[in-house]
Amino acid sequence: MKAEIIAVGTELLLGQIVNTNAQFLSQELAALGIDVYFQTVVGDNITRLEEAIRIAQGRADVILFSGGLGPTQDDLTKEVLASVLGTELHIDRMAMDKIEQFFLSRGAEMTENNRRQALSLKGSTPLENETGLAVGDAIAQDGKFYVVLPGPPKELKPMFHNQAKPWLLQQALTDEQPIYSKMLKFAGIGESALETRLLDLIESQSDPTIAPYAKEGEVTIRISTKASSQTEAMTKLNAMELQIQQRLPQHLYASEDIPLEKKLVDMMVARQLTVSAAESCTGGLLMESLTSVPGSATVLLGGVVCYTNEIKKKLLHVPASLLEGDNSPGAVSEEVARALAENVRLITDSDFGLSVTGVAGPGFAEGKPPGLVYIGIAERDRKTEVHELRLNGNRETVRLRAAKSIMYRLWRRLVDQETPSAE
Amino acid sequence: MKAEIIAVGTELLLGQIVNTNAQFLSQELAALGIDVYFQTVVGDNITRLEEAIRIAQGRADVILFSGGLGPTQDDLTKEVLASVLGTELHIDRMAMDKIEQFFLSRGAEMTENNRRQALSLKGSTPLENETGLAVGDAIAQDGKFYVVLPGPPKELKPMFHNQAKPWLLQQALTDEQPIYSKMLKFAGIGESALETRLLDLIESQSDPTIAPYAKEGEVTIRISTKASSQTEAMTKLNAMELQIQQRLPQHLYASEDIPLEKKLVDMMVARQLTVSAAESCTGGLLMESLTSVPGSATVLLGGVVCYTNEIKKKLLHVPASLLEGDNSPGAVSEEVARALAENVRLITDSDFGLSVTGVAGPGFAEGKPPGLVYIGIAERDRKTEVHELRLNGNRETVRLRAAKSIMYRLWRRLVDQETPSAE
Repeated sequence: MKAEIIAVGTELLLGQIVNTNAQFLSQELAALGIDVYFQTVVGDNITRLEEAIRIAQGRADVILFSGGLGPTQDDLTKEVLASVLGTELHIDRMAMDKIEQFFLSRGAEMTENNRRQALSLKGSTPLENETGLAVGDAIAQDGKFYVVLPGPPKELKPMFHNQAKPWLLQQALTDEQPIYSKMLKFAGIGESALETRLLDLIESQSDPTIAPYAKEGEVTIRISTKASSQTEAMTKLNAMELQIQQRLPQHLYASEDIPLEKKLVDMMVARQLTVSAAESCTGGLLMESLTSVPGSATVLLGGVVCYTNEIKKKLLHVPASLLEGDNSPGAVSEEVARALAENVRLITDSDFGLSVTGVAGPGFAEGKPPGLVYIGIAERDRKTEVHELRLNGNRETVRLRAAKSIMYRLWRRLVDQETPSAE
Repeated sequence: MKAEIIAVGTELLLGQIVNTNAQFLSQELAALGIDVYFQTVVGDNITRLEEAIRIAQGRADVILFSGGLGPTQDDLTKEVLASVLGTELHIDRMAMDKIEQFFLSRGAEMTENNRRQALSLKGSTPLENETGLAVGDAIAQDGKFYVVLPGPPKELKPMFHNQAKPWLLQQALTDEQPIYSKMLKFAGIGESALETRLLDLIESQSDPTIAPYAKEGEVTIRISTKASSQTEAMTKLNAMELQIQQRLPQHLYASEDIPLEKKLVDMMVARQLTVSAAESCTGGLLMESLTSVPGSATVLLGGVVCYTNEIKKKLLHVPASLLEGDNSPGAVSEEVARALAENVRLITDSDFGLSVTGVAGPGFAEGKPPGLVYIGIAERDRKTEVHELRLNGNRETVRLRAAKSIMYRLWRRLVDQETPSAE
């Protein structure tokens, strides 16, 4: 089964945005065993989009579209596809209800152009948009399968996972042996170090296949296999997971695609633990990550963003002697990381107190280089740990890696405590 | 002049990498006044690459290739292009010398396949690779212009800037006028509302053209024009900007592509103002956004993430009577937003104190619905403002919109204060 991805949007052709949707869909289709042979980007233009669809019809069985479903005049993916397929558009009642409800609940007037987002191809399966207003479409015609998805990644991804993928499995992939996959998530190790540790497995891979990739301070491995049943697949996947786990026991934190912060929150909810944080260079990123997880309210009590020394002293009782004067260690130091972690824990009466202090860059601070970061973990009735990090990358990367590093250390600490003690 | 970008590489079709080369080249071509009508990605496959080239010949004047110039058997961009153009490949002596020198200097033996990187189309202008070994190619035939660039961005970018761009300017663009663009950024208004307010301008657009798009709580418009000089272009662009500005004076916050948080930090740095924040439902997102801007250290003093009532009381002195008891307004209320903003400002002695308290979801809290958020802005010696928001979307979207909303309100307040008062 061959596929083509057509991304529609002049902003892509102007280079205003990068085509991450094509990457996401390519990965997903590969996991389904569908070979992507072409990715095409075309602007918001009727003639050229029509031409792109006709070319794709000549060389692909599955054609996925992203973008051009919005409310404005230049959003025309569905119109053009309907015209090529010789069908028409009609209003999808469920999508229309949702749009009306949206404007009603905001007390705002719905402008006429918003109706466009409820348009759907006659004869198609409408794909519900869980995170936006524009409805998607899936339609089969003459042995070809067409899937129309919205452009914003936060709408496209859930629509693909929850609507388009099941439709493809049911409609297009009936003869194929389904592919089963498992995602393994790693922290505290880089992509190339991880790949080196698994090189012989990766190079000799045939079944299951092993595909590593890195994003935002975490490394993911997808292991995949074709099998006639879930049971058969799981036997193969679990055996491979065990091999990988034995090589990287300190780093494999989840066997599903969840970020490290979710793993942490889930573990702490289960064990009724609480946490607080004092953030200097990360400026709230650590707490923001933890609170992005639903259910984090019972875990993260809160904390302090302490950019200035004044706030470190006033709200977190860091002694002036650590922060000021020629012989003080200064704000970016092991001593201050320790004081911040211990004090924020005491003040909030949480089980764990986390701290980050460092130089995010771009320039030096206190004569210390960008990328130098200290992280601390204090715990009720236990010893405080502090680590010095020397991180590479720009301001954004340093901040992200610092936040991931402290979450990694906290995860390690929680795992070590899981080992039952002989009481 | 119409262009197509063809990226060659199976790794793109598997989603292992994202096509940033297409974005880079699109931006560069737009700046040269060349319209990119299509981007295509094709795998390392002779038949399909040949097909892609023939399709591009039918719809573009300029065809740029990226990738497929490496030493291995599946790097075949030049072979296929030579075959389509009816020409042959020969060794480029300068490139070959460089490859030999490279291996000599490392004391390594050159393997035969490395010679492939010195291959060049007969009749072409070889494009020197300053940061790698594979030589590029530029060739004109039958009124079409072909540019072959390497895949790694750190090789492609300098080769484009220093070799391909001058060649294009000299060979292909002798008659063309360059395109000039300006980005306008808006906050506090959605894409469709904005478009409705500008509909007649957008529909009658010819020169300059107007293209709106939305991302992450902000709306951007790009206005573009072709002109023979910078001065002529700026006259046209500034006139259009003024028209747009007059219709949306409350929303246009920048005439360059910067996020709202950068605009705020820059304004506050210039006016030597400081800010602090008390964040409940946004969990640090507001402070994280502000501190993502280099230079924010003198503006954001810090603040408190106050998820629990205990922390609201202990660190931010919110009276228990507002938080607890049947007749209290509760944590998600105008009163608490006011107290949080005023108290965080007093405690940190900042010029502005910001607060966010609300229900991010997914569920209800205090019997209040997800999306209900109160934001507060306190200011030294001035009146505190509090706004009630009813936001749609999932947890992530509610948090993002709440953070953008308070930044928008702060921006409005700073702008209003710019109007010189009669002293």
